[in-house]
Amino acid sequence: MHFKVFTLFPELFPGPLKASIIGKALDNELWQCEAINIRDYATDKHRTVDDIVYGGGPGMVMRADVVDAALRAHFQVKKPRTLLYLTPRGTPLKQSRVKELAHCSTIGLLCGRFEGIDQRVIDDWCIEEVSIGDFVLSGGELAAMMLMDSVLRLLPGVIGSPESLDEESFNEDLLEYPQYTRPADWNGMKVPEELISGNHALIRKWRRQQAEKITSLRRPDLWKQYCEKSKGLGKGES
Amino acid sequence: MHFKVFTLFPELFPGPLKASIIGKALDNELWQCEAINIRDYATDKHRTVDDIVYGGGPGMVMRADVVDAALRAHFQVKKPRTLLYLTPRGTPLKQSRVKELAHCSTIGLLCGRFEGIDQRVIDDWCIEEVSIGDFVLSGGELAAMMLMDSVLRLLPGVIGSPESLDEESFNEDLLEYPQYTRPADWNGMKVPEELISGNHALIRKWRRQQAEKITSLRRPDLWKQYCEKSKGLGKGES
Repeated sequence: MHFKVFTLFPELFPGPLKASIIGKALDNELWQCEAINIRDYATDKHRTVDDIVYGGGPGMVMRADVVDAALRAHFQVKKPRTLLYLTPRGTPLKQSRVKELAHCSTIGLLCGRFEGIDQRVIDDWCIEEVSIGDFVLSGGELAAMMLMDSVLRLLPGVIGSPESLDEESFNEDLLEYPQYTRPADWNGMKVPEELISGNHALIRKWRRQQAEKITSLRRPDLWKQYCEKSKGLGKGES
Repeated sequence: MHFKVFTLFPELFPGPLKASIIGKALDNELWQCEAINIRDYATDKHRTVDDIVYGGGPGMVMRADVVDAALRAHFQVKKPRTLLYLTPRGTPLKQSRVKELAHCSTIGLLCGRFEGIDQRVIDDWCIEEVSIGDFVLSGGELAAMMLMDSVLRLLPGVIGSPESLDEESFNEDLLEYPQYTRPADWNGMKVPEELISGNHALIRKWRRQQAEKITSLRRPDLWKQYCEKSKGLGKGES
């Protein structure tokens, strides 16, 4: 998998992605990261990448022509299949989209700074606008790294025990059940007895109940989806 | 502002947060970051921090006793006011919570790896479980950095033009309007004429309409909240 990251801070990549299992996968050449400095495509002697906001307002906006030049230099065709712009205005990133991205060979990521990027280059290149959460960052770089991490851990050979991908949050619209390890009794707090029962049916049932409980408490939105799907399945069976 | 980050990868901090305005604020001592290696609190000669999953299943879980020892060494009192665990099981982080966190003097961040952390230490310390999005990462470190970035940019003196914080996504439950800069005509694509009209009332109206349009298209959830609040306000006035 090949990432092309367009940024004003190319020195940040791969940065934290050099650590742990994702870093090991980089060493093993399961993925590569090309960080492209948008500033290299500025045309004036000051290497200007931004200018004032049309219509007034504080801050600066990244220029369409400079971003366009950077993209053109790194994509053979306009409108490449997978080119994403990290922005709070985007469609929220979900695990389902992460799983799709894990099948791509090349992923372009555009990182904004300041007040964002001139909308015309986003529209002209049909760039997919993706948000990683309902909060604002000082730039798209950390969001890009997070997207990369979430996609890369799904590649074959990255996680030591790939079975662990089968039971995790957002599978079946449920958050994951709580986890426990040794010691069985820690300061008088014991591991739930169901988990040490050795009865696999009971463990499955307990975990499902816990996952349902935490999802209904913390994520009424996911819980509603889950209930609707369960109802749909129930109807189909009857 | 003082961050205490509990992690198995302390070398990753401050990492990308050394760049740009957040890095400048670090140089200016507006914030500091103490990265604490959880492994330093392991008690056996192999410095083990994890163990097998109770109830069966792939992967490993971080031990309650080791995490507890790391926390005890860095907090005077148990249950400190602001201690967050980054986990997809948590309550979604919103800009409103980020704004609250910007008023804290010390923020503890706990980063999990593997299958997560033994639930007993989370419960015992009343740790706030926070999710940064509906996808799964290989660890909590990138999520912690993102939370730090989102909080730090709100501190006085960090952003050059603090007025720009007044109009951005998630204020009033709306995504932000699109931005444009020079050139006014780029390859035949023109900046919307409202923005070059010089008519401030018209510009405000256009921006509001654009923000409403994009929010209703991309974020039916936010749009519903916005409409309900607008309706409530309308009723109050009539």
